[in-house]
Amino acid sequence: MFREEIKVLDCTIRDGGLINDYQFKDDLVKATYRAACDAAVDYFEIGKRLCESDDYPRDKYGAWNFCDDDDIKRVVNSYESETRPKLAVMFDVGRVDVSSLTAADSSDIDMVRTACYAHDVDKGLDLVKRTKDLGYETTLNIMAPSTAIETELVEGLQAVEDSPETDYLYLVDSFGAFYSEQVAHYIDLYRKHAPSKELGFHAHNNQQLAFSNTQEAIIRGVNLLDATVNGIGRGAGNCNLELLLNFLKNPKFNVEPIYEVIQDFYVPLREEIEWGFNDIYGISGALNQHPRAAMAQRADRNRRDNCLDFYRECREID
Amino acid sequence: MFREEIKVLDCTIRDGGLINDYQFKDDLVKATYRAACDAAVDYFEIGKRLCESDDYPRDKYGAWNFCDDDDIKRVVNSYESETRPKLAVMFDVGRVDVSSLTAADSSDIDMVRTACYAHDVDKGLDLVKRTKDLGYETTLNIMAPSTAIETELVEGLQAVEDSPETDYLYLVDSFGAFYSEQVAHYIDLYRKHAPSKELGFHAHNNQQLAFSNTQEAIIRGVNLLDATVNGIGRGAGNCNLELLLNFLKNPKFNVEPIYEVIQDFYVPLREEIEWGFNDIYGISGALNQHPRAAMAQRADRNRRDNCLDFYRECREID
Repeated sequence: MFREEIKVLDCTIRDGGLINDYQFKDDLVKATYRAACDAAVDYFEIGKRLCESDDYPRDKYGAWNFCDDDDIKRVVNSYESETRPKLAVMFDVGRVDVSSLTAADSSDIDMVRTACYAHDVDKGLDLVKRTKDLGYETTLNIMAPSTAIETELVEGLQAVEDSPETDYLYLVDSFGAFYSEQVAHYIDLYRKHAPSKELGFHAHNNQQLAFSNTQEAIIRGVNLLDATVNGIGRGAGNCNLELLLNFLKNPKFNVEPIYEVIQDFYVPLREEIEWGFNDIYGISGALNQHPRAAMAQRADRNRRDNCLDFYRECREID
Repeated sequence: MFREEIKVLDCTIRDGGLINDYQFKDDLVKATYRAACDAAVDYFEIGKRLCESDDYPRDKYGAWNFCDDDDIKRVVNSYESETRPKLAVMFDVGRVDVSSLTAADSSDIDMVRTACYAHDVDKGLDLVKRTKDLGYETTLNIMAPSTAIETELVEGLQAVEDSPETDYLYLVDSFGAFYSEQVAHYIDLYRKHAPSKELGFHAHNNQQLAFSNTQEAIIRGVNLLDATVNGIGRGAGNCNLELLLNFLKNPKFNVEPIYEVIQDFYVPLREEIEWGFNDIYGISGALNQHPRAAMAQRADRNRRDNCLDFYRECREID
């Protein structure tokens, strides 16, 4: 697939950090950034930009939950590149302080992505406006639309359409519940109610469909695609960046640096933390459920592979 | 997805046996058969029906490479079921003896699937005819069409069209190289040159696309679908039967027995043998290569996760 407009956003550190409370060592973050540079991906999301507090301290929740300017600079300055990706951070509605951001022209950050649920779209758009006012590229990522009441979702989409500050509107398969037909359905819905917006897509791999659903989004005209090195991410993880780059034919992309950082950093990391498809996440995705129950099951050594028990429990509370 | 015509073929033992030379214990084969009965899948392929010889002895290559009538009977008689699947075995061109088969009406076997490469379609069709003459349902499975010269493949498809004895023509993604667009392309090609034939589809999971490509085949009208318990199969394995049954809405199917046999038999088996997606198979699939190099790499403890090295080696011989 070659389409010049397609842009790839590497959210390895941001989504991967959900597994380990953003306790990545500096050398891994720098190596991942270097790989993103050399692979010529378009955006690199280095973490969340949340507020530190007594209840939410940095030593427990990790540097990349806060993305202080100095931390970012340490990474960005570690590698010179002519194909440096634009730098992104994520905002969560209710947990951020816009006043901590300087204007975009004096920051290493290029894009702020705001994540919210369908019922919080107006709060999200408020953040989008304030970040756009500072000069940043913006996205609004509506989480878990598969569990939103459709009238509320549609109302949110219409609000996004009326927000000139939103550069990209993201379709997010938070629970890894979509088949390709749902990807198509939601893209049609988003297009219908927010026709002027460029769309992005963020998949989860609960049913081994993150990569194929990303392809479906491409086929349906979506031009901003999230992926992570080795598919790292909460639960079953995300669309594998290396598989996506193999698929995209644009010669500007280079997959070799991704395989290099996998071999050198992510293969060892797999000994420490778990991500990727398994039976438990497959059930969670098929039943369109939040991954928290699946993650709890995986964390219990005695039950982690008891897929029949998990299937029955999930059906009971269905 | 509900379409009454869709039939599911469980090839767990036949494709899984390629990993361990068909050294499955009887209790696993019986439990898998029982699960297939209770899940109400339509066909159960219990192995290959090859010729035993001094070079190809049963103790080394396993009972389910030969599928003697007595071995089959032992499994079939182990469980009574009103939803017993039809029983299938596989023929490989050049390694079988049709005279070892009795007529279908006196056999536990219902279907014989003949596998061949594009250049051997005529040999394959000869076996198809002879098995049809004995009263069996028949399929012709053309392996590795992604590496066939298209003129030769088309000639083979036309020969299949002219073969009234062939009940199903299979599209097989032997190398796990297809994206959905290739699934669509080949289905169109198969339909163009063998328009009267009902199609089947057999996927491999090298790029995490076995399940999604099977969905694409469904969307394109294919009605006979291969899948295996837990995705077991050579290399990256196959389409996961449990994911497929979650997707199919026909109420005759029941996924619980599949999760039960996974929990009781296939979780322990995963400690002994490996199958499923990993970086090495991902590269092999993306580059449309036979999995033997990837399997050799995975068998080498010191190099099994060296995806950069493998990528470079594959590109060199590309």
